[in-house]
Amino acid sequence: MSLRISRKPKLEKGERFDLVIVGGGPAGLSAAVYVARFLLKSVVVTIDVGGQLNWTEWIDDYPGFSKIKASELTSKFREHAEGSGVRVVTGFEVVDIKKEGEEFRIISSGGNEIFAKAVILAVGSRRRKLGVPGEDRFQGRGVSYCSICDGPLYRGKRAVAVVGGGDAALEGAILLSGYVGKVYLIHRRDSFRAKPLLVEDAKSRENVEFVLNSVVTEILGEDEVKAVKVRGPKGEATLEVDGVFVEIGQEPPVELFRRTGLETDEQGYVKVGEWMETNIPGIFAAGDATSLWRGFRQVVTAAAMGSVAAYSAYQYLLEKGLIGGKR
Amino acid sequence: MSLRISRKPKLEKGERFDLVIVGGGPAGLSAAVYVARFLLKSVVVTIDVGGQLNWTEWIDDYPGFSKIKASELTSKFREHAEGSGVRVVTGFEVVDIKKEGEEFRIISSGGNEIFAKAVILAVGSRRRKLGVPGEDRFQGRGVSYCSICDGPLYRGKRAVAVVGGGDAALEGAILLSGYVGKVYLIHRRDSFRAKPLLVEDAKSRENVEFVLNSVVTEILGEDEVKAVKVRGPKGEATLEVDGVFVEIGQEPPVELFRRTGLETDEQGYVKVGEWMETNIPGIFAAGDATSLWRGFRQVVTAAAMGSVAAYSAYQYLLEKGLIGGKR
Repeated sequence: MSLRISRKPKLEKGERFDLVIVGGGPAGLSAAVYVARFLLKSVVVTIDVGGQLNWTEWIDDYPGFSKIKASELTSKFREHAEGSGVRVVTGFEVVDIKKEGEEFRIISSGGNEIFAKAVILAVGSRRRKLGVPGEDRFQGRGVSYCSICDGPLYRGKRAVAVVGGGDAALEGAILLSGYVGKVYLIHRRDSFRAKPLLVEDAKSRENVEFVLNSVVTEILGEDEVKAVKVRGPKGEATLEVDGVFVEIGQEPPVELFRRTGLETDEQGYVKVGEWMETNIPGIFAAGDATSLWRGFRQVVTAAAMGSVAAYSAYQYLLEKGLIGGKR
Repeated sequence: MSLRISRKPKLEKGERFDLVIVGGGPAGLSAAVYVARFLLKSVVVTIDVGGQLNWTEWIDDYPGFSKIKASELTSKFREHAEGSGVRVVTGFEVVDIKKEGEEFRIISSGGNEIFAKAVILAVGSRRRKLGVPGEDRFQGRGVSYCSICDGPLYRGKRAVAVVGGGDAALEGAILLSGYVGKVYLIHRRDSFRAKPLLVEDAKSRENVEFVLNSVVTEILGEDEVKAVKVRGPKGEATLEVDGVFVEIGQEPPVELFRRTGLETDEQGYVKVGEWMETNIPGIFAAGDATSLWRGFRQVVTAAAMGSVAAYSAYQYLLEKGLIGGKR
């Protein structure tokens, strides 16, 4: 047996880069593939790798892969980025980014700091959870946080529950009504934030049942999800379902954005222009953290945004004369 | 040996669909994957499958595939679309799209016509060719039409030629100067349409040589590209190169856009909003035919636009009450 030496990528304190990518989901790793092509000295720093891919088990909507384990797709993205020559450093949580002259100081929660001439922020957005027993256990295998992504995987199932009252929940209920025998739409109020048209459409579907003024208190099952416990006006009930779609919103890391001075939209996502530029020259954003295509968050959209952010950051560095022939 | 029956998808004259996707490149096939998820009755009609993927041999920048034959990636996209239940009909060249009430009539050059409640136009854009001997023979294997896409595949080569005088040519020369020993930038004038900053940057690079007032007259080689013949002020010369990057612009199918009544930008690409909507309600556009991310045309950006166009078309059909529970 040969001795294997750990090749965990190291990060020197105070190390300097052309570009730092913050975030290791599809947007950040795709950005890495592209910045490598532009021959930028770059690194991905991230808490962990995979982003939203860690929230599900199967992916069947990333074009080119008819069906693939989410963890395997994460590995392929990571290998592609690392194979292109970009280090991926995990366990690095960015808490602040300060512009100092032409440079950005990127500070981690662990007290580390690195420097970059440009930054791509691809930190994603956390899906809100119900916080009930059974939820974590079945996350990604019976409990989903994206109806459009995971809905078709439930084709032919008996029944599912969708939880929430916004556009995403109503869209989820409508879409799922085409795939499964019965959809329970569970909402804690009897009025909806969703567009009235979506509410009407869902109501018009025979196999969508509205369970209003009700909250999920537990997700039940053994190997698989079997039912949800619901508390409503008439007390507690158990609904037999094969899956639960939690569509109660997302939480972008607004505190980091505020501290960095990034402009956000009314829901807290970083405002970006066509080329993924933010209000701070030299900071670009990509993926679920941004205002682009809110309400339609896919692996392929995140990856595209990452590639565009990389191209834009490269253009920025070229135009500023911070890389290349003029150094 | 068993008898195999051809299962070439048929298209009935006058057949009606929820959605018709025009174009079989990455944008159109990705749109197909998504419209299938939304349970729309849909079809892809296209001259041929692959789009810009047919113009190159290798792809190493579609995130998730470190390196793959372009033809294989085309097959994977097509299988994904067809496996999702969408027919892909080739040999169908769309020459006009007419809105008739709530419906679109889609007319082919062969005199066929089909109907749709919504349309996704993903017809791409043709790269301009030099039109010189040797060009077709080496297309995709020594002659490239996208420096950003193919440049890194030339890592370590001795020399390449870049032809053109716009941003794409200058960007190509700059990028390639990091990969190869020497870059000849061949331009038919001595002034440039490109941003002055890019021209300056290219000039500042020791290994970029400007060959001005010159045109390529032939691409030479046996199994591989070996040289280009160039005619300039001092007569004809032969430059030894391992590759030729033709960056002399693109031609979107403006005639189809004009006939359909689609608004275009100043370069002839279909103007789209954030959700890939055009000026005609019910017609969405995606990929290289659009105004989005002009100057950065990648497989992943086309695929993302296709997915967004599919989502938007689905929303449009839902909101119009043209599909689902209210029919």
